[in-house]
Parts: sequence; C-alpha cells; structure tokens
Amino acid sequence: MSSNTFGTLFRLTTFGESHGVAMGGVVDGCPAGLKLDLSAIQQLVDLRRPGQSSITSARNEQDHVEVLSGIMNGVTLGTPIGFIIRNQDAKSSDYDSLRDVYRPGHADHTWDAKYGIRDHRGGGRASARETVCRVVGGAIAMQLLAHFNVKVFAWTSSIGPIHLPADVAHDLEFRYRNEVRTSHDQSAEAMKAHIAKIKAEGDSCGGVISGLIKGLPAGIGEPVFSKLPAELAKAMMGINAAKGFELGSGFGGTLMQGSEHNDPMVLTDVKSNNHSGGTNGGISNGQDITFRVAFKPVSTITKPQMTLDKNGNEIELLHEGRHDPCVVPRAVPIVESMAALVIADQLLQHRTSRI
Amino acid sequence: MSSNTFGTLFRLTTFGESHGVAMGGVVDGCPAGLKLDLSAIQQLVDLRRPGQSSITSARNEQDHVEVLSGIMNGVTLGTPIGFIIRNQDAKSSDYDSLRDVYRPGHADHTWDAKYGIRDHRGGGRASARETVCRVVGGAIAMQLLAHFNVKVFAWTSSIGPIHLPADVAHDLEFRYRNEVRTSHDQSAEAMKAHIAKIKAEGDSCGGVISGLIKGLPAGIGEPVFSKLPAELAKAMMGINAAKGFELGSGFGGTLMQGSEHNDPMVLTDVKSNNHSGGTNGGISNGQDITFRVAFKPVSTITKPQMTLDKNGNEIELLHEGRHDPCVVPRAVPIVESMAALVIADQLLQHRTSRI
Amino acid sequence: MSSNTFGTLFRLTTFGESHGVAMGGVVDGCPAGLKLDLSAIQQLVDLRRPGQSSITSARNEQDHVEVLSGIMNGVTLGTPIGFIIRNQDAKSSDYDSLRDVYRPGHADHTWDAKYGIRDHRGGGRASARETVCRVVGGAIAMQLLAHFNVKVFAWTSSIGPIHLPADVAHDLEFRYRNEVRTSHDQSAEAMKAHIAKIKAEGDSCGGVISGLIKGLPAGIGEPVFSKLPAELAKAMMGINAAKGFELGSGFGGTLMQGSEHNDPMVLTDVKSNNHSGGTNGGISNGQDITFRVAFKPVSTITKPQMTLDKNGNEIELLHEGRHDPCVVPRAVPIVESMAALVIADQLLQHRTSRI
Amino acid sequence: MSSNTFGTLFRLTTFGESHGVAMGGVVDGCPAGLKLDLSAIQQLVDLRRPGQSSITSARNEQDHVEVLSGIMNGVTLGTPIGFIIRNQDAKSSDYDSLRDVYRPGHADHTWDAKYGIRDHRGGGRASARETVCRVVGGAIAMQLLAHFNVKVFAWTSSIGPIHLPADVAHDLEFRYRNEVRTSHDQSAEAMKAHIAKIKAEGDSCGGVISGLIKGLPAGIGEPVFSKLPAELAKAMMGINAAKGFELGSGFGGTLMQGSEHNDPMVLTDVKSNNHSGGTNGGISNGQDITFRVAFKPVSTITKPQMTLDKNGNEIELLHEGRHDPCVVPRAVPIVESMAALVIADQLLQHRTSRI
Repeated sequence: MSSNTFGTLFRLTTFGESHGVAMGGVVDGCPAGLKLDLSAIQQLVDLRRPGQSSITSARNEQDHVEVLSGIMNGVTLGTPIGFIIRNQDAKSSDYDSLRDVYRPGHADHTWDAKYGIRDHRGGGRASARETVCRVVGGAIAMQLLAHFNVKVFAWTSSIGPIHLPADVAHDLEFRYRNEVRTSHDQSAEAMKAHIAKIKAEGDSCGGVISGLIKGLPAGIGEPVFSKLPAELAKAMMGINAAKGFELGSGFGGTLMQGSEHNDPMVLTDVKSNNHSGGTNGGISNGQDITFRVAFKPVSTITKPQMTLDKNGNEIELLHEGRHDPCVVPRAVPIVESMAALVIADQLLQHRTSRI
Repeated sequence: MSSNTFGTLFRLTTFGESHGVAMGGVVDGCPAGLKLDLSAIQQLVDLRRPGQSSITSARNEQDHVEVLSGIMNGVTLGTPIGFIIRNQDAKSSDYDSLRDVYRPGHADHTWDAKYGIRDHRGGGRASARETVCRVVGGAIAMQLLAHFNVKVFAWTSSIGPIHLPADVAHDLEFRYRNEVRTSHDQSAEAMKAHIAKIKAEGDSCGGVISGLIKGLPAGIGEPVFSKLPAELAKAMMGINAAKGFELGSGFGGTLMQGSEHNDPMVLTDVKSNNHSGGTNGGISNGQDITFRVAFKPVSTITKPQMTLDKNGNEIELLHEGRHDPCVVPRAVPIVESMAALVIADQLLQHRTSRI
Repeated sequence: MSSNTFGTLFRLTTFGESHGVAMGGVVDGCPAGLKLDLSAIQQLVDLRRPGQSSITSARNEQDHVEVLSGIMNGVTLGTPIGFIIRNQDAKSSDYDSLRDVYRPGHADHTWDAKYGIRDHRGGGRASARETVCRVVGGAIAMQLLAHFNVKVFAWTSSIGPIHLPADVAHDLEFRYRNEVRTSHDQSAEAMKAHIAKIKAEGDSCGGVISGLIKGLPAGIGEPVFSKLPAELAKAMMGINAAKGFELGSGFGGTLMQGSEHNDPMVLTDVKSNNHSGGTNGGISNGQDITFRVAFKPVSTITKPQMTLDKNGNEIELLHEGRHDPCVVPRAVPIVESMAALVIADQLLQHRTSRI
Repeated sequence: MSSNTFGTLFRLTTFGESHGVAMGGVVDGCPAGLKLDLSAIQQLVDLRRPGQSSITSARNEQDHVEVLSGIMNGVTLGTPIGFIIRNQDAKSSDYDSLRDVYRPGHADHTWDAKYGIRDHRGGGRASARETVCRVVGGAIAMQLLAHFNVKVFAWTSSIGPIHLPADVAHDLEFRYRNEVRTSHDQSAEAMKAHIAKIKAEGDSCGGVISGLIKGLPAGIGEPVFSKLPAELAKAMMGINAAKGFELGSGFGGTLMQGSEHNDPMVLTDVKSNNHSGGTNGGISNGQDITFRVAFKPVSTITKPQMTLDKNGNEIELLHEGRHDPCVVPRAVPIVESMAALVIADQLLQHRTSRI
C-alpha cells in the first residue's frame, strides 16, 4: 500500500525511480511564516550528490532542486511545498543485462515477488537515489528546527574496521570538509584509504554513522507507540542498507548494571554519561539525543558473483553500472535529514500535549 | 498527540495507567472469519504476568482478559475487538513518597516536562504494565499469522554478560519452560543465577532478546518509509527499556565486505548465512526474519541513589515499590507480540500491492 | 479495514455490538490538564438513552459509563481515556428469526456481502446502539470546547412534514426539555403527535436536525481535503440513517445569485444572513457555523413487509424487536457529539498552522 | 496541519498555488500492473480546463500533465505516480489591488486569520485551480475502477432555477458534448442561456451536480466512521463552493414514511426506487450509488461590492481577474474525480475485510 509518506504532522511524500523522468516530493504541514532559504536546501542536497570524489559513484547528477509551491517571497505559506529534481545522467542501457537477473543483496527478487513487475533500470525506486528527496525534506525540516534552536548532526564513526578513536576531540563542523564525512582529520585519511583499497579489490564495505541532536527541550516525543527512539529507529532503519540502530548506551548498555547505567538526575545542564541517549520513557529529557546507525557493505561489487536469473538458471554476474563502494559518506546528510524530519514532526505534535 | 495506536490496517489502540481502574484496548482491522481462541490469548498474557517467579516483580495481578466485542461463536466478525484487564493488586500508597520526586532513569521528569501533570502511582502510563495490552493484541495477531503459516519466536539471548553460547542447539519450545525465557537449559541456569545475584545486591541488569519470524513468504513489507526492518525497529524501540535494534548482520555486518556479506541468491530454500536477516530493500525475501533487541538494566534499583525533587532539591531516594530486577524475561512475550502485530499489518497491506 | 477511529489529533476509537458484552471506546489525544466532569458525560449519554419516552425504543439500558483511565483527580493526564458501557437489556432471542433473513432498509444483506459473517442480534455493530460511544467521546470534546468558549447545539427542525415555523423565537435550551428535542414548544407538541400517529400505524418517519456552533474563532479548518464543511459532512453522514448534509445556504443557495449570496464582508461581529454557514474556503470566518442533517425514516417498521432470506426465498417479515419509530429525537445529542469531535480535532490541528 | 492528502490506501497528495510555478501531486497506493493510458488522463483534465467556452474563465492554461514516475512501458509499478502541471497564463498583476483587500465570499480573510500570510495572487491555494490535480488523481482512479467494471458519472442537474425535467431521457454520454455538462440537450440550451444572462449582469449563479456510480458490487464501504456516504460527503464537500450533499432520497426522504422509503429487498438486479442511494449501513448494496452536490453561486462577481480591507477600512471592490460566472460546468469532471478516488480507495480497503 501507500508507504511513501513519512511523518504525521510534518509530512514528506516522495516519488521517483532512479532512471525515470524525475525524483520529487511534497512537504506538507510546514507551518506558515518560516523564512525558507532555498540555497541551503540545494547545499544539503549537494552534500549527498554522487560524482563528487573518487570514493563515490561516478554518476554525474546536477541534482538541481526546483521548488514549485508553498512559498512566497521566501516565506512559507502553510501550503504544501512541492519540488522536483530531474534525472539527467541515467544510463539505463547499463542495466539492460539485469532485466531478468537478480543481483545478490539487492531488492530485485523481492520487488518482483511483491509487485510482479519491476523497474530494473538502476534499481528503480529501490535505488538509494530515492533518498535525494529525503534530503530536500530534511533540509526544510532543519530550517524549522533552527527556528527552535535545535540542530542535528551526523558523522561517520566507523568505516569497516576503522573506528574513530575514543579519546580524540571531535570537530563536527569538519565532517563536511572531508570526503568520508567524519569528525577527525587523521581518521578521515585512514577511512578514505580503506574505501579506496576495498574499491580497488572490486569489493565494498560498511560502517557506522553517529547522530546527535542538540538543543531539544525536555518533553518532546510521544509515549507508548511513538516514543522518540521508536520514531528515530523507524526513520533510520528505512534508509537503504541500514541494519542496526541504537540510542544512548545501546547494545553496550545491556552489559551495565542499573546503578551504573542510570544517569544522575539533573534539572540543570551538567555533564552526564548520558547513557539514556537523551530520552526517558521515550520523551526527551533535555540532554543531547545520541544514536548510531549501522550500514552494511554495499551489495553492488565488481567481483564476479554467482546468482540466479528470473527463470532459476545459475549465471555469473559481472556488474557494470556505476555505484558507491561504501554508502556511509553519502548517507551522512541522509541520516541528518531523517533525524530532522522526526524532530520537526515531534516538535509540532508536542503543541497539542497540554490544554 | 494521540500515539496510543499501533499499525495501519491491523491496528491496536491501548489505554490504562498502572494503578488506574483497568488496562484495555481495541484491535481494529482484524479480518472477519478468523477462529479466535480466547484461551490462547490468556495463555500469552500469563507468560508476561508478574509474580510468577523469584526473579520478577512481586506484584500479583491475575491479568484476566475480558473480551468485550468483535467475536461471535468464537469467530471474528470484522468489527473491533475490545478488551479490558482490571488492575487488582495496585498498591498506590507505595508511591506516595514519589509524588514530587524524579527517579533517575525513569520517565518521571520527562512526563512532567511534557504534560505538566503526571500519574506518579506506579509510573502511571509510563509503567511497563502498559505492555499487557500489547500482548493481547499480539496474541490475536499471532492467530491471524497462524492462518498464514507464519510463526513468531523470541527468546533471551543474553542477560548482562551471560550470553547463549554460539555452538549449542537452540530449543525454541524450551523458552517458555524456564524463567529467563531462553532456548538452552544450561544457559537458563546461569542467567537466572545472575539475575538473582544482581537482585540481592539491590541492583538491576539488562540483556538482549533475539527474534525470529518463520514462514513469511517473499514480498512482504512496504518500500521506502515502511520497510519491514523500519516497522520492526519502531515496534521494538517502543518497548519500555529498549535501547537498540538490529536485523540480520546488524552492527557486526559493518565489519564485513560485500563479497562476504551478500547472501547467495537463491529462489529455493537452501542454507544461507542470512546476513540480510530475511529482507532485501525492506521486503521479505522468503528466508527467516532475524533480529535482536537490546534492553537496558531496569532503572528501579533498591540501592540508595541521589536525585532531585520537583523543586530542585537534592534528596536521597530509597525505592519501595515492587519491580523486576531484569526486564528481559518478561519482555520475551512482548517482543513476540510486537513482531506479530507488525507482520499481521504488513500481510494485510500486501493485499493491495497488485491489481 | 479499520474504520472505527474518528479524528486526527483528537481521536475516538469505538467498539461493541448491540447485544455483545459491552460498548466502549478510547479517546486519545485529549490534551493534559483539562478538568473533566464525569457527570456531564453521563448526562449527555442519558439524553441519548432509549426507554425514556413513549416515542422511543422500549429497550431499557442504564447506559452507565465507566471511565477506566486517562484522568487523575478529575483532570486529564494526556493519556488515552478508556471507557465501557455494559449491555444489560439485550433480548437476543427477539432476533433469532432474523438469523437468515435480510430486513429491508437495514444493513443485514450488506454486512453479509462484506464479511461473510454477521451478528444478527439487534443489528450487531450496525445498530445505532454503537452511537452511545460517540456521545461519550463528544461529551469529552465538549468540555475541551468549553475551555475555548466554543459551544455546540443541535435540535430537531422537522419531523416528517412538520417543520419549525420560520418566524418563531428559538429557545435552544428548551431542546432537551421536550421529547422530540426541538426548540419551540408548540412545534414540539405537533412533532410528538406526528411520531405517535406514525408509530400507531406501524410505520416510521424521518426528519431534519439543525446544528449550530457558536464561539469558534476565525481560522479553524484545514484547506483542500479537510475543509471544515468536509469534515462535518463526513461526521454527520456517518451517523446511522443520515441521508443529507448542508452547510449555510445549502441546496437552497443554488437558487441565489452571487450578489445576493455573498455575505457582507465584516471583521467585527455584525448581523449577517450568513449564507456561508460560517466558513469561507473551508476555514471558519468567525460567524456561527450552521448546518442541517437529513435523517431517513427508520427502516424497522411493524407493518408486514415482503423480503428475502439468505437463500433467496421470498418471505413475509414481521418485526418483533424493540425500536424507535423516529430516529431524530435521539440523534440530537449524537449530532452535537459528532460536531464537537470535529471541532475539538480542528482546534488542535490549528495549533500547528503557524511558526 | 497537513491536509493535502486524500484517501487511505489509494492516496492523492497535491500541491500548488494558482499563480505559483506549478500545480502537481502524487498518487500513492495504486496497485502494480495496471495499464495506464496517459492520454485518458489528459483528456479528463482538458474537460476541466478553463478558456474553453464563452461561459467559463478566459484564463488560457494548456494544463499539460507531465507524469514523472510510477509507470514503465505504460504499466504501473506499484510506486508513487508523481505529476506536475505548469502554470502558464497566470496574470498576477491583475491581483495587485487585492493584496490587502478581502473579497466577500472568498477565503481571503479566513486564510489570513489562519496563517497570518496569504498568497493573494489568483486566490493562491484557495483557488479552484487546485482541483486540476484532483482530476489527474481521479483519472488514474477511474482506470483502476474500469479494471473492476465500475464507472463513475456526474452531470449538471440544475443551473440556478433551471432544472432537468424529471420525465426526460438522460443521455449521460451527452454530458461532455455540451458546455454546461448536462444530460439533456434542450436543458443544455436553457442552462447555457441562463449563465450567459447572469454573466452579462455582472453576477454569478450556482447549481446542482448529480452523481452516479455503476457496477459497484455489494460489500464496499467501511462501517461506523468511514461509511461510503460519509467518505463521499467528505470528498464532495471539500470541493470549492460545495454547500450540500445528499445520497439517494436525501432531504426529500425525510418526508417519506418507512413503508414507502424502504427499498424492496432484492438480491438480484431488479428495478427499485433506490431510495437508499445504493448503500445500507454505509456499505454498498449492489445497486447504483446516487448522490447530488449543491454548489453556491461563484463569489467573484463584476458588480461593485462594498467590502473591507486588511486594516478595517470600507472600500468599494471592482473585480478585474478572470473568473467563471458559474462553477458547475467545470465542476462536473471534479465531482467524477473525487467519486472515483473514494471508490478506488474503498475497493482496496475491502480487500482486507475477510480472512
């Protein structure tokens, strides 16, 4: 059924196949009166754009965002904000050989199983190209958040086995000044080298992205089924290639005892281990929201693989399309976007909590 | 806003505070014509019931489920199934001292921040007592799944530092024949001993629950924002004390390379590492769905803790209410219930995928 | 699918069959901090109760509303408000003969066509008994509206051919002091006499209920698909036996010209024809919201009718169950309740319109 | 909040202001495998297009629909269908004088009251230009309906005081071969003459559109809050200028007695008065669905009117923009579109009614 809408009050609806005419979407529920900087939207989209470095896909899309409605003189009207991004560098012929072949790790088989029809060109709607529209929505959400002094950050905290050291100073502003989008310059070098090596081997790798939400006041998040961690988890696990999500202490917290895990109760802003990750009972407690998202290695590799075609014949697959050897760097603005969409929605939902 | 409903087509709406008159809910969207075994509902609820062993809360609730509508002669009518469970052993006076005190790790402060009012008795609606209604809903969902030959399992895979050994045979039927709800008898002993020790110390511990969905055909799950892993993640991260979720290879998968991580592409049922966890592109691929949920140590401990009251005064907190030293054993049927709710909903949603 | 929930932010979910164990529901999304007078809820429910006069059904239900959650010390907690009303005077045996018979004008055939199963006892969930839960939800909504100085009124404006005269003074407070729930004492007599005559003939009659919402500020209602008239229309046309809805000038307005129909533009409160019915572009304009709802004659009559049974045999039907000869008087509090639910929801929705 | 989406499973989301860059939308939830004839979409849009005759607005929009996603080789993929229609003949300068003036009968004042900001150019999003996207969505829905042999019709049944005579033969195919979109050639002449006369007077008029849904099987429509009449009423009352809705006997039915109103109970297809309008208990009964929608006279007139500006000054308003003297003819394809959207959604919803 219809699952291309995200959010309850601040809603993003998206459309578009990787090699179709255009990607696009609608942001509905953005309050009226918000000054919207269109160049800031384009800027975040550019940070996700392929073809920017030696470690990302060579597909060269300009990804020009055309906003079609919802604003007048740079201010939101309270009406839906429609936008499109034309697909320009689609090379569908690269995918002709994949019309009847199921690529391992990809959604080819499952889409056929679901719909009985599938756009095989560049993965169709299963392609991560779909996420460009999330970034447009996220960029709008971020401007709403800025109005409330809330800011969202994400950065690469591991690439394959290369982890950020625990004891170095993070520089979150640095994350968009290096190609792997991490927060520490020496790690950036090592991570980039690792991706380059894996790419040269015809293989791919995964990694972890850390997220941080600053400035969120206490009281945000809806109890029971729409807890803040639940909505963040849904947002992140819906990103292509995501395999895991943890908030605060996460899986590591299962090894602690309560006396160690419980954050000291503070009403004012003091230093805390923040094992809670910024929520209690699913509602923000005024501390930073912290989370981590695991991304599997990209399914597309250039090493030959045995697979099956639609008729059940075993064949050798040699990939020819353009792809990223590691999804993590380009996923950083996507993680930020999804987090911003969640928080924008929850901030609006909170407005009806009290009489 | 209203966040006490879970699901899109198969929907559970719940209500109730821990020490209020009753817990209850409504399952709407269950198709007509399903034979519903009420005793099986009661049985699953009993598996979650407190007061059953030395390692769970001493609160003694009968948790008798009264079904009020939606069935006739044991068959669903297609109308909403309303139910209630009266609260009987609430000892609200135990909580008098907590009226103006914020317990560390609990949702006391955040609920006050959100609503400006809070039911302090037993945690009110923030109490895990709320989950009893999820189990009723889950038990109904399971009977729908059984009709489609789909079965949901969950079991304790770690308690604090005690993990199930990797090389032992699991016996999933055994999980409800031991108090920690694990799948291996020797581990059950060790885990129970660990909880007993922690309890004796006035402390608490966490753990991990593994989940498994068997029999799900390929094609289930909705692309983009409602991917199966996204909906499962939301379901699990909305359970009290959950801090992490992973599907298939999870965080461990970030260390692999694509050539290793990609599951061999098979249309027929063969042995696989199943790194995918049973989904590709968010849609089931016909293999088992496998996932893991991290639970933090219970916030309530009997060791004294320093905390703040509503007026910002530092006070020493000594807990007196009844509680579980480890939430994991009783969370096993809850994890199964939430998984069943997700799958029931997605199975129905899939019915409109094709013309 | 699941269609037993009404509203977006202020949501009512209901359950219950006419001769089942209980009717009940959940109000989710009511803001925290509202003083809730439970006796006012019971009072409105009592106004809908059968068995109160010679012109309503003899079924004698106490309709005692038991509130199970969501309030503490008479104040809403922001949590869902669950409630039940036990069915007590169900005489299911009256309906034994209807197990396989389709009553003309009733939903017997259509429910069978939809679900393949049907609770034939008293109409099951298709019975207007279902509306008792709407009145509970509406009574809660009214208390929220009172907080914002908004008040909802409905009254009988015609019974069959007996219309309220155009030139008499209405007394809205009088509506609940007469059995037909109209606003003019002489008309009340004539209307009651008409119903009594029709009943004596073994027949039934219909009528029109007028609605009025006072005190609603300008700016309420959501453009495009959720215009205030659209949501009110849905609310009213979902009531059993409703066949028509009009707002302001309604069908009569189609005979006017624009120069006559356009209400004079006023920002302050002046006398107006109010052809608009209080909305422009689907948004309230600060004037009274006025609407009318048409109800068909009750389908149950005691005159013999020819009909079909489940197997297609023609049979003569003689009704034996208790019923109302005219639904209109008891529908008055239901219309008020549905209107209150719409407005409560829209008032909350409006909170996110602006930055 | 976000109210620019219509439907539950078959969903249309729209965007666009009258004088903005483009109108557009997304149809989500259309099942995969439907052959979609794009020229049929354009054809229905053309039937709504302005500038086609002497009795409609002179605004000359080509209204070219560009479909951007969701189909491959003319077949739906099960993915969202995005589309845009560029605005080309907007003459925003015509509206400069209206920047601070509230037009009587229009939504100028109410939008300002709601959002504190308003696109005054051609009415912004309050303009009926918004409905062009409904027609695109409706045209897609109609092709889904055609697959199930369901067909939707609407036609003008009155223009001001000119009504279709009761005793003439209707020719529904004729409706799009005359400028007033009625079903009887002599009436078409009289209605057109009436509109021309009113226009010459600088005034406007209203009318009624009748609707008919043929081929709908019994069992469609969801009980309680989403009854078929309720959803149709919402759909119709959300169209610009709609003031009333009735199904089957409607307001006229309130004058009948039950013995007259009850349609004879038939399982097979026989002649019936069809007072029910094709539904019982909100569920289709297999007969034709019949309804009527009242439209008020257009608010824009060229006669001078006194009104207020934003600052409360009384001014004389002389309209200069292009407009329709009667909305009814162009609303015919819109009524058909909204009806098709409702039925498509309900047909899909029905798929989950039974096990």
